[in-house]
Amino acid sequence: QWTLLDWKPRRPDMLTDAFGLGKIVQDGLTFRQNFSIRSYEIGADRTASIETLMNHLQETALNHVRSAGLLGDGFGATPEMSKRNLIWVVTKMQVLVGHYPSWGDVVEVDTWVGASGKNGMRRDWHVRDYRTGQTILRATSVWVMMNKHTRKLSKMPEEVRAEIGPYFLEHAAIADEDSRKLPKLDGDTADYIKGGLTPRWSDLDVNQHVNNVKYIGWILESAPISILENHELASMTLEYRRECGRDSVLQSLTAVSNDCTGGFPEAGIECQHLLQLDYGAEIVRGRTQWRPKRAPGLGNMGPTSAAGSA
Amino acid sequence: QWTLLDWKPRRPDMLTDAFGLGKIVQDGLTFRQNFSIRSYEIGADRTASIETLMNHLQETALNHVRSAGLLGDGFGATPEMSKRNLIWVVTKMQVLVGHYPSWGDVVEVDTWVGASGKNGMRRDWHVRDYRTGQTILRATSVWVMMNKHTRKLSKMPEEVRAEIGPYFLEHAAIADEDSRKLPKLDGDTADYIKGGLTPRWSDLDVNQHVNNVKYIGWILESAPISILENHELASMTLEYRRECGRDSVLQSLTAVSNDCTGGFPEAGIECQHLLQLDYGAEIVRGRTQWRPKRAPGLGNMGPTSAAGSA
Repeated sequence: QWTLLDWKPRRPDMLTDAFGLGKIVQDGLTFRQNFSIRSYEIGADRTASIETLMNHLQETALNHVRSAGLLGDGFGATPEMSKRNLIWVVTKMQVLVGHYPSWGDVVEVDTWVGASGKNGMRRDWHVRDYRTGQTILRATSVWVMMNKHTRKLSKMPEEVRAEIGPYFLEHAAIADEDSRKLPKLDGDTADYIKGGLTPRWSDLDVNQHVNNVKYIGWILESAPISILENHELASMTLEYRRECGRDSVLQSLTAVSNDCTGGFPEAGIECQHLLQLDYGAEIVRGRTQWRPKRAPGLGNMGPTSAAGSA
Repeated sequence: QWTLLDWKPRRPDMLTDAFGLGKIVQDGLTFRQNFSIRSYEIGADRTASIETLMNHLQETALNHVRSAGLLGDGFGATPEMSKRNLIWVVTKMQVLVGHYPSWGDVVEVDTWVGASGKNGMRRDWHVRDYRTGQTILRATSVWVMMNKHTRKLSKMPEEVRAEIGPYFLEHAAIADEDSRKLPKLDGDTADYIKGGLTPRWSDLDVNQHVNNVKYIGWILESAPISILENHELASMTLEYRRECGRDSVLQSLTAVSNDCTGGFPEAGIECQHLLQLDYGAEIVRGRTQWRPKRAPGLGNMGPTSAAGSA
């Protein structure tokens, strides 16, 4: 049986997963962790931001590796990877959001890994509302290894494959994956450009580069405010091409391919995105799809008022 | 006895606080909530950021109000406040950090409220390491009410005092509060200035203004990188003077009053800060104190590798 606890509970009422660090479920290969949505994880419309949901994906991925006893000295790197100075970097991510949870909602995140070609690992997620079972999000991603000193991509060493291979599960979270090519935007094809974006000190992660979740905020910086205000992100496909360090200055470009801001707000919108360095090197290409927001007032205002009384 | 659960556990192994939403403790006036530090809450040096710790303070404050059955339709506003369109705004905050927790550490946050003059409320916090009991942070703050339509400050209505007064506890988290005046910096007295700071879409909270925790990142934007890299924030005093909306453009000013970057790194550093609108209106005045970071390698690399085996 799998065990997660690495400290002794000091009170008898503590459960194995009392602190919500997650656990392996039935099949022995899927890792599950619950999160309650906190007040600081919601935005102006009172629902969790896409960054929050992506952070939860990251956290379960790391806790999955840890729970399997495969955490080396890095951020999700296995012992054999750590020996070789290898770290994981994401190259592709696709996310479909069914609905955005509200403050106090509890989400249940399932994650598992699989093979992706000869040198990659695939990681999928399925996020549900813990109480209703309704799907909140489905996501899939591809990861490869990079040498943390040379910053070059590496083949997957046999020793690493031996560590992680036994956990591979051939099961896709998203039935119909987005395989359309992501076009390269430039100053002519983009409708909106926002330049001068720089990492804040707090955007850097332990691998000393900007964490992939932070890019999403920058990508959305060039989307017109009318889309952000009246629509919610329904899906997102990202291709990560290059790292971004703490001294980088970035430009965010967006092209709106189906703009209905003046016409039929019930229709969806599709945008193409590019995040690039000031001198043109590509960081991330992306595509987003948006649907009209549900009318205000339908959302949850936070946890139902508690029956607090003496 | 106080109860927090506002839904039925669907599994028999769920505890009252299984999702970590906190509970009232012994004295009936102090609210306690545990947080495990997540991978996305740590920075490049592998410890929780000051923003993370402040977010935990905000979350416990709101859950305290909720658990007391006093949550109206706003963000911590009571029913009598909601009737009058009043929201809470923070005017002063002082934080002393003993040490920064690492990924996987569990912090236990205690919070309580008290009177502050005729129209204000004081809220204090004491954060400890759940396993060792060691103090992580002590903080105190002052809150007043603002009309959400006119954006003007309001006296505390008697009906609101009747709601919250019974929870007041006269107990200061910080024995020796910082009562020194915060000087106003300007272009001449500041050593470092960083302009052109604008809120990202995701920086706005449900009150449609920039959440007070976000200001901290901007304040630190103008601190020299040598301080951020080699020191950790030991204490911070902030005076909030004015709101900042989504179209604001800000300048961050820092004066280093005790700069030892070239001399004796073991000595502490004190900085004065000002965050202002481009045309000079003050948003936040602040003072920070810094101490040398502990040598790398002493920190926790994350949760100890789990004893995971079949």
